[in-house]
Amino acid sequence: MRVSFSLSNDDIESVSQSHVEAARQRQSLLTKPARSLGRLEDIACQIAGIQRTDTPRVDKKWVVVAAADHGVVDEGVSAFPQAVTAQMVANFLNGGAAVSALARQAGATVKIIDAGVANPIPGDTSDFVELKLANGTQNFTFGPAMPRGHAVEILERGVELSVKLSKEGADLIAIGEMGIGNTTAASAITAVMLDESPKTVTGHGTGIDEVTRLKKAHVVSRAISVNQPDAGDPVGVLAGVGGYEIGLLTGVILGAARAKILIVLDGFISTSAALLAAAIAPTVKQYMIASHKSVEPGHVLALAHLGLTPAIDLDMRLGEASGAVLYIPIVESAVRLHNEMATFEEAAVSDKEGAVNTESVTH
Amino acid sequence: MRVSFSLSNDDIESVSQSHVEAARQRQSLLTKPARSLGRLEDIACQIAGIQRTDTPRVDKKWVVVAAADHGVVDEGVSAFPQAVTAQMVANFLNGGAAVSALARQAGATVKIIDAGVANPIPGDTSDFVELKLANGTQNFTFGPAMPRGHAVEILERGVELSVKLSKEGADLIAIGEMGIGNTTAASAITAVMLDESPKTVTGHGTGIDEVTRLKKAHVVSRAISVNQPDAGDPVGVLAGVGGYEIGLLTGVILGAARAKILIVLDGFISTSAALLAAAIAPTVKQYMIASHKSVEPGHVLALAHLGLTPAIDLDMRLGEASGAVLYIPIVESAVRLHNEMATFEEAAVSDKEGAVNTESVTH
Repeated sequence: MRVSFSLSNDDIESVSQSHVEAARQRQSLLTKPARSLGRLEDIACQIAGIQRTDTPRVDKKWVVVAAADHGVVDEGVSAFPQAVTAQMVANFLNGGAAVSALARQAGATVKIIDAGVANPIPGDTSDFVELKLANGTQNFTFGPAMPRGHAVEILERGVELSVKLSKEGADLIAIGEMGIGNTTAASAITAVMLDESPKTVTGHGTGIDEVTRLKKAHVVSRAISVNQPDAGDPVGVLAGVGGYEIGLLTGVILGAARAKILIVLDGFISTSAALLAAAIAPTVKQYMIASHKSVEPGHVLALAHLGLTPAIDLDMRLGEASGAVLYIPIVESAVRLHNEMATFEEAAVSDKEGAVNTESVTH
Repeated sequence: MRVSFSLSNDDIESVSQSHVEAARQRQSLLTKPARSLGRLEDIACQIAGIQRTDTPRVDKKWVVVAAADHGVVDEGVSAFPQAVTAQMVANFLNGGAAVSALARQAGATVKIIDAGVANPIPGDTSDFVELKLANGTQNFTFGPAMPRGHAVEILERGVELSVKLSKEGADLIAIGEMGIGNTTAASAITAVMLDESPKTVTGHGTGIDEVTRLKKAHVVSRAISVNQPDAGDPVGVLAGVGGYEIGLLTGVILGAARAKILIVLDGFISTSAALLAAAIAPTVKQYMIASHKSVEPGHVLALAHLGLTPAIDLDMRLGEASGAVLYIPIVESAVRLHNEMATFEEAAVSDKEGAVNTESVTH
């Protein structure tokens, strides 16, 4: 078990501004009114900067879904029993879950990670990547969710996972999670990192009623009061009120940024991991894009804190990386537009001033 | 030339509510918290109702891009010269435009229609479908954009195009347009159909400044004052202040609904066609979905009038069906989720009450 986390902001390079600028220049030459592709243009330019290239690519797409359990379910914060975490992992492995169908549509490969599932997984688990340190967190209303050593170790394991994916060739990593009770942990992390009240950031999760939501917000308040997490110590926040899957995803984000890979965030829980990652190494924000806007009230606040704007609003609140994977074809479209559209000159289309350029263009 | 439009609301069947209900029932059994896929669930149910099936399909995808010119450009309402319409058509035909790249990503086939382009198209036009009645509209600040007979005829030609696509096997038609000056026509139609002021619905189009926008809103006011279009007579609105590509798309929408094909709207101009189609035959609204939210201020008002909510917000304002085609993979994802996800029973996942169903399921 490692005792202090090895990665800092110095390990993460800023995206290449010269490649971002060159990409912006190319966008201004493409056959469309200036900025008419809106934020699709920004996505292409960001990826050009991340990949330090004039021809950004999103060929190899990975989806990391980390699963873990949460001791805080003892407080009655979820609509579903804890057994569902392991059952849903089996469903992922069998290809029957939402993320399975979405990944097939997007042409992405899903990695399901055991970051701390409490119950045995039924069926064939040969595709299940076991990185767990414990069978879920402790009930964090009585003390820390996990020992600090576990928080460090799960972060390291997340970083190593990204290194491994990078070696297999990764242009994009979409992240998501499964864990009954994990919106409670995400609410606690978000409240701490944004200095917001638990009532503001706590939502209905998988479908609890308003009375249970208020109880859940109260549970978050108690967890914060008992553990006294400090936003200046993100590893401590993870240990105090986090979760193993959230820690793993935090590590995946940091590792992906170090390996110069685009990270696509999903909903509330993966974004709480992004808050921790950005507190550990602020430069990681340059490697992230938001996908959808979840109905969880803390999600859009957390995205704004990271300077990110979601693009899809379909009232989703599933997790599992579902919104992130749904967004992959749009990211691919942004890159394809950048690489494949003709310039005004190539197409002999008049620009805004009305001058037609009909010179032949050689490549 | 036909003199009165042949199609009415009686020709459009309502979507099958029993299939919508059966689809809703299936959604409630899939391995996810109830309604957690949000409006993706609604899309799948709508398509099930349109196609009258338990297994909705979006295999054969068409993109119809109608191009035409507008006499009102004489009033200086656009940032680009009229020659660009024909030049961009050539760019579409050569595969260098935004819609070309997006359609390749979405696996959709693009049909480019000459609905009334003023200038000759440079290069190879063998793939260009000529359905035009005139080389663009008249300047509608002095009188009608087109004779009423032309309005009827271009609607009929749009209906016939959908019938033709239906015969080739179409599960989805995304619609879009190209035509310098056509946001001015769309603004006029939207102002009339929504009974809104021209200033409210008129935007910056391809990129005019605020002074030019106010002039454009004034041009729209003059057009309405000169032609006195009546929202109760949508064919008259099209003739008075419309455009040929807008008329053609209106016909495509009506024909698609008659043939029970899903229609994906694009931005402001295609939605102005949807306003006319819905005024001719209100049932067509059941066959439409919105894709993205354009930065044109009239767009979201027009969508709300139709009872539609956009799903993508990327600050786009290009037209060409770009937003609609960008949305196709999301529509496909909705259908794939519906058809491919396991039910709680199939996956032996506990439901909200905690009961595990492990009965074996036969199909």
